[in-house]
Amino acid sequence: MSASVSPLAPKSVPAMPALDGVGIATAQAGIKYKNRTDLLLMVFDEGTEVAGVFTRSKCPSAPVDFCRANLGGGRARALVVNSGNANAFTGKKGRETTRATGEMAAQAVGCSADEIFLASTGVIGEPLDANKFGHLLGGLAKEAKGGAWAEAAAAIMTTDTYPKVATRQVALNGATVTINGIAKGAGMIAPDMATMLSFVATDAAVAAPVLQALLSSSVETTFNAVTVDSDTSTSDTLLLFATGKAGNARITDAGDPKLEAFRAALGEVLHDLAVQVVRDGEGARKEIEIEVTGASDDRSAKRIALSIANSPLVKTAVAGEDANWGRVVMAVGKAGEPADRDRLAIWFGPHRLAHEGERDPDYSEEATSAYMKGEQIRIRADIGLGEGKARVWTCDLTKEYVAINGDYRS
Amino acid sequence: MSASVSPLAPKSVPAMPALDGVGIATAQAGIKYKNRTDLLLMVFDEGTEVAGVFTRSKCPSAPVDFCRANLGGGRARALVVNSGNANAFTGKKGRETTRATGEMAAQAVGCSADEIFLASTGVIGEPLDANKFGHLLGGLAKEAKGGAWAEAAAAIMTTDTYPKVATRQVALNGATVTINGIAKGAGMIAPDMATMLSFVATDAAVAAPVLQALLSSSVETTFNAVTVDSDTSTSDTLLLFATGKAGNARITDAGDPKLEAFRAALGEVLHDLAVQVVRDGEGARKEIEIEVTGASDDRSAKRIALSIANSPLVKTAVAGEDANWGRVVMAVGKAGEPADRDRLAIWFGPHRLAHEGERDPDYSEEATSAYMKGEQIRIRADIGLGEGKARVWTCDLTKEYVAINGDYRS
Repeated sequence: MSASVSPLAPKSVPAMPALDGVGIATAQAGIKYKNRTDLLLMVFDEGTEVAGVFTRSKCPSAPVDFCRANLGGGRARALVVNSGNANAFTGKKGRETTRATGEMAAQAVGCSADEIFLASTGVIGEPLDANKFGHLLGGLAKEAKGGAWAEAAAAIMTTDTYPKVATRQVALNGATVTINGIAKGAGMIAPDMATMLSFVATDAAVAAPVLQALLSSSVETTFNAVTVDSDTSTSDTLLLFATGKAGNARITDAGDPKLEAFRAALGEVLHDLAVQVVRDGEGARKEIEIEVTGASDDRSAKRIALSIANSPLVKTAVAGEDANWGRVVMAVGKAGEPADRDRLAIWFGPHRLAHEGERDPDYSEEATSAYMKGEQIRIRADIGLGEGKARVWTCDLTKEYVAINGDYRS
Repeated sequence: MSASVSPLAPKSVPAMPALDGVGIATAQAGIKYKNRTDLLLMVFDEGTEVAGVFTRSKCPSAPVDFCRANLGGGRARALVVNSGNANAFTGKKGRETTRATGEMAAQAVGCSADEIFLASTGVIGEPLDANKFGHLLGGLAKEAKGGAWAEAAAAIMTTDTYPKVATRQVALNGATVTINGIAKGAGMIAPDMATMLSFVATDAAVAAPVLQALLSSSVETTFNAVTVDSDTSTSDTLLLFATGKAGNARITDAGDPKLEAFRAALGEVLHDLAVQVVRDGEGARKEIEIEVTGASDDRSAKRIALSIANSPLVKTAVAGEDANWGRVVMAVGKAGEPADRDRLAIWFGPHRLAHEGERDPDYSEEATSAYMKGEQIRIRADIGLGEGKARVWTCDLTKEYVAINGDYRS
């Protein structure tokens, strides 16, 4: 954990309503951290359905393998998350740990092990002993209560400087339903997946395949559109649970038009959490939104946007409050996507610095410099070729990023 | 320019022999820098042949366009390089500058403008006025002399902390020939091309198409195998000139077995320069060699190696002298190439830290920590799938990188 809270932390945190069918408890297991919670148990009522998306890493953690195997059933009764150790690249020991944890959680909750979901975050390559925290699960299951979302968000933090929560309420098919989510960052954030961990639950009744369709499409413009350092975690996990307790008639068709408001609200929760992750990027002092327009298609626009967002030279320039649009040109050029130097236009906030292949003669260095001192920087590049567009979010690259990551393990 | 010389600067610099058929002169044009040279003229005797490789950026600089257009002729009489301004993203003004510079150089040397080659390095997007230095070319052409290679290397520096030179001599088809090269970095270094600028000349007689074949293949394992920050410059240029004055019978077939020693020597010059660029990477305190073995093929190995080399988390760990092999696992996993977590093995120098999917039980934290204090760090990842292998070079990511790039333009 960092000593000080990010200057980009939210000014206010929403009160998180209890969700019918979800119980939450946390504990100090002492896995790595001292004097803070590092273990989270979420218990779901019978009938809870689940969807998930995971890292595309070819070296996923043992908990990712475990979740993928259980996702096929579509049912969830509990989620166990620990911070301090990722249980990644831990070989047979890692698989034994997830198996044992799954069984202990199943016993604590009174369900089958294939209704358990697991996530671990922290150091890679260190064996994680399930006995360090498994014995706590029974007590946690008994004390789990509905409203402890802020505590849940705090327990899963690693180098995060603030807990990340978001909530929305929306009408769905005859009932008002709630969507609550938590997330944690803060390094190794890049598509795909770009969280490290995020858990979202709703009391809506929605069938698992519909949840999966909603989650897979919403993630493209939210968690898969943020990047801190271009590094993809071995543990990235986003799970969506639906307890079905809100009383709406269960939705079973992903094309059902009644889903639209729910889809939008879910998108807002994911976007809110994803941007919070970026704003707590390691060492971040500024949030950067990159918008690319005029690309040959949306996919091309997103690749160009990520090329800009992942460029160390762009990110250090923003850290230095320097509207160095030349580096944006560089990043457009290296993306490998169709681009025409002589049609490019670039804005920093409202200030157009370049158009038609050269510096905008009307651009004011003074006004742009003043803009760069803000904490939210918006960079737009218009490629001038077509209608493709995309937005992604990142943060600046500061000396603090280097400091945090230069001695994280020790 | 940085205030202090990189601790990784060469301990000794080779004496650069004069090359028959090459004259060199430098000047202080005051384009951006004060009290240092920023203009280089190389003059080549009639009959000099030329080959080149350039940035793959979709937004190349005006000089790159100019060189590409002239390369088809295969003949060179002069090279003009300025530092301080890249003449990139300068629109019509940029093209006018290269046209005017080409004409002024042709007049100074007494040749056609299509035998002129140009390169510019420095800030992007600022117009470059040919009249700021074009009037100096006539005088430089008169005073050009054979041995001024160190001065040439110094004149093309931007944020480099030391000039980069290399030389080799080798027998070729009845004569001893010399290959001299210079290069400059030091940010925006990534494939492809991974220099910013490098110029190599030889007195050998080699036909332009043969030169091109040699250069294109040698660059893959040298300049295209180094990366500082994954950012690709708009100006990357590597030119190879052959004056033909050494007296060897001219080589006209790229498959000629007599070329082998020359090919090896050229490769050595390029490798030497490329690694010097990495060792002068902005803020670099350690050189990192990444070797990947056991990949499904060589191409896959190189992509994995570059994924490791470009990972900010790997680079900051090395900066912090932390043998954080878990981040190497992460970088292998995110490369998108075939990999099997449970077959991976990872070494830092001679120390095997992980094998068969988990931490090596015999690994000594103490010995590895001592190894990490060195200035050359070798990381090897064996993928365990096939015979593919590759080596790439990079440097660590330090707070100084952020400092240098946070206020470069201002």
